[in-house]
Amino acid sequence: MAPRPPGAVCPKARPDPVNLFNLIREFMMASTLLTQAEFQRRWQAMAAVAEKSDYDGLLFFSTECEPANVRYLSDYWPSFETAAVLVVPGREPVLIIGPESLNYATARSRIARIIQVMDLRESSQPDYPGSTLPTWEDVLREHGVRRLGIAGYPLVPYVIMKNIAAALGSFEAIGNADALVRPVFIQKSAAEIACLKKAAQVSECGFKAVLEAIRPGMSEAELCGVATAAMLANGAEATGYPVWCCSGPNSAQAISRPTLRRIGTGEIVHFSIGAKVEGYSASIGRPVVLGQCPDGIRRFLQVGLDAANLTVELMRAGSKSGAVASQVHDYIRAQGYGHAILYGPAHGCGQMECEYPFLETSSQYVLEDGMVFMQDMFLTEKQMGFRWEDGVVVRPGGGELLSSYGRQITVL
Amino acid sequence: MAPRPPGAVCPKARPDPVNLFNLIREFMMASTLLTQAEFQRRWQAMAAVAEKSDYDGLLFFSTECEPANVRYLSDYWPSFETAAVLVVPGREPVLIIGPESLNYATARSRIARIIQVMDLRESSQPDYPGSTLPTWEDVLREHGVRRLGIAGYPLVPYVIMKNIAAALGSFEAIGNADALVRPVFIQKSAAEIACLKKAAQVSECGFKAVLEAIRPGMSEAELCGVATAAMLANGAEATGYPVWCCSGPNSAQAISRPTLRRIGTGEIVHFSIGAKVEGYSASIGRPVVLGQCPDGIRRFLQVGLDAANLTVELMRAGSKSGAVASQVHDYIRAQGYGHAILYGPAHGCGQMECEYPFLETSSQYVLEDGMVFMQDMFLTEKQMGFRWEDGVVVRPGGGELLSSYGRQITVL
Repeated sequence: MAPRPPGAVCPKARPDPVNLFNLIREFMMASTLLTQAEFQRRWQAMAAVAEKSDYDGLLFFSTECEPANVRYLSDYWPSFETAAVLVVPGREPVLIIGPESLNYATARSRIARIIQVMDLRESSQPDYPGSTLPTWEDVLREHGVRRLGIAGYPLVPYVIMKNIAAALGSFEAIGNADALVRPVFIQKSAAEIACLKKAAQVSECGFKAVLEAIRPGMSEAELCGVATAAMLANGAEATGYPVWCCSGPNSAQAISRPTLRRIGTGEIVHFSIGAKVEGYSASIGRPVVLGQCPDGIRRFLQVGLDAANLTVELMRAGSKSGAVASQVHDYIRAQGYGHAILYGPAHGCGQMECEYPFLETSSQYVLEDGMVFMQDMFLTEKQMGFRWEDGVVVRPGGGELLSSYGRQITVL
Repeated sequence: MAPRPPGAVCPKARPDPVNLFNLIREFMMASTLLTQAEFQRRWQAMAAVAEKSDYDGLLFFSTECEPANVRYLSDYWPSFETAAVLVVPGREPVLIIGPESLNYATARSRIARIIQVMDLRESSQPDYPGSTLPTWEDVLREHGVRRLGIAGYPLVPYVIMKNIAAALGSFEAIGNADALVRPVFIQKSAAEIACLKKAAQVSECGFKAVLEAIRPGMSEAELCGVATAAMLANGAEATGYPVWCCSGPNSAQAISRPTLRRIGTGEIVHFSIGAKVEGYSASIGRPVVLGQCPDGIRRFLQVGLDAANLTVELMRAGSKSGAVASQVHDYIRAQGYGHAILYGPAHGCGQMECEYPFLETSSQYVLEDGMVFMQDMFLTEKQMGFRWEDGVVVRPGGGELLSSYGRQITVL
């Protein structure tokens, strides 16, 4: 077994005050990057969007697997239940939760006022006998809302949309406000970029733990556990999304879940490892080969890495997004791997690991200084594939990588 | 520090062929409990429900955080995207997925035919330039569906419901089929109970790892990582839901997420630890106290444990569900803790850790032999709370516990 690649040095899992890295870890775990002033800025920004719109207020909706909208405005993220934040110009924002989360939400929310409604209960639809919670009509009437814009519109269940429409008198009183609020999400503050950088650092700890533990015969799921435990011991509050390890034929899966398959030698084993830090999700995507690396695999991985690096280089402020994507895809085609392209080569990143805007050949916008993306190079052919992925901040001279640990072909 | 409580002995994380427990682990990880015949049985059962209904077919919908419906019928569970299974009497079932999951779904699905539709893409709504996927109209017309029942109805986003309604001509052509299909989900096969038992065993490994690692000063998130890694190294394909560790004032949260708070002595630290095995989610809920256990906390925990044990005892086939709940709540009130009751004392369990039916004071059904529940005793008062939780199979003589490891007051 070859030596591990040099790079990030992660603290040990056990506290040890004389160890420098544990001191760093202590600091990482104790600090809070997002101040109350940051949340006030967000409320004002969204209230300003509402003010300029046709809506009396904006409702930001989140589920437990897509908590970004609500977390962005309240620091609360639902578990089992759904949640929403109502922003009405000239009023304090309100956090709206389900029947079972009051203690949890009270402990987390940056928004003082919390209202519980039955519609945001968990999907198995408990009865809660005797419960007397306010209705949508109560909440919307109190806030003078007759026309409502909804952000997270594609996530809102039909049942909830229907009840809100009934409260407002018709479906026509509701609109999709996602396009209106996106510019606020896209504009990342210094604190947000700091969260994403920290999330990338913690993700590196997850990959480092994998490199130290990985052996032929371990299962994909087990390796995901190694990465998860290392991130949670080093400052992550959660994973950004479930960690993936895709090996052998499973490596061809762009979207996946780990299995109990035991990894072998001479095959691609790729990892998507992402930590969540104060709501922000990073990810690092890395392929690894154990034992001998066949020439065909090495060349495939190298084309992907070169294309990934080209993407980062091209992501400079002022570039046209569609042109960046086309140049990268042209490069891959010139290397003979056009058939292996599935999407990409990048997508926005923030509280959602994959958020608007996408960087695709059809994209029309111009890259701006401070925008944050995931450079996401997934290629797949026949029974194998891989992902090189890292966070990138758009800068005038090109993209600034949030992580470069292990960003090379790793054969162990 | 007192010795650990005796009970489950879990295998080590590293393979070691001469170790008996690793041999057990090898067996646990290699075996597949659900056969293709089991899936055929499910398709037939759901087709029979459709046949007797007003619907031409049933659509089972799932999201990435509530994958049960689709997993139950296909063994596939979505990641990032959503998914559905269409069951039409006299036809083969069809798995319907989003644009990015074909390789993943092909590797997992027990259903041969897979159709991709754009509506099931991920919530950040990528463009997929050039994509030409079939529409709902194509799919439903091909299957002769004019009236459609939907299971997982509360989960279906408004946008998707609207597009299905447009394909069928009106919203009136769609109905909520959850109540129709519940009897099939509730009736657990021997294979399903085996999956739940294995999931409970693997969850014990998670709690055992916590008992071995736990020290004052560790963070809630770190302890969740310890439990997660142990379960993934011992046969879990994933956690059943995100693992929780709630400590000190956070222990009052019935629904929660772990934080970076460092646990201390003399306070309640409670864990909800659940493994997912072949789609089935178990959970064990356990409070732990480090150092001296104040008398008030000990008495509070004991009342909860006694109420939890009473619940299991009363869950015998033939009992009236509402009467069981009332008796348990009466017991808690008699002990002076009526104010601490939030819900419960049990809920159905299967692929969803919390699924229909709930066992509440308002419940109307009779418990039947072989029904599976989670006995879920959560009590909360002032700044503290805890959960005693275990799987229970209803039997003629009372409930059969799926796990009793560490089901006692643990002071370390």
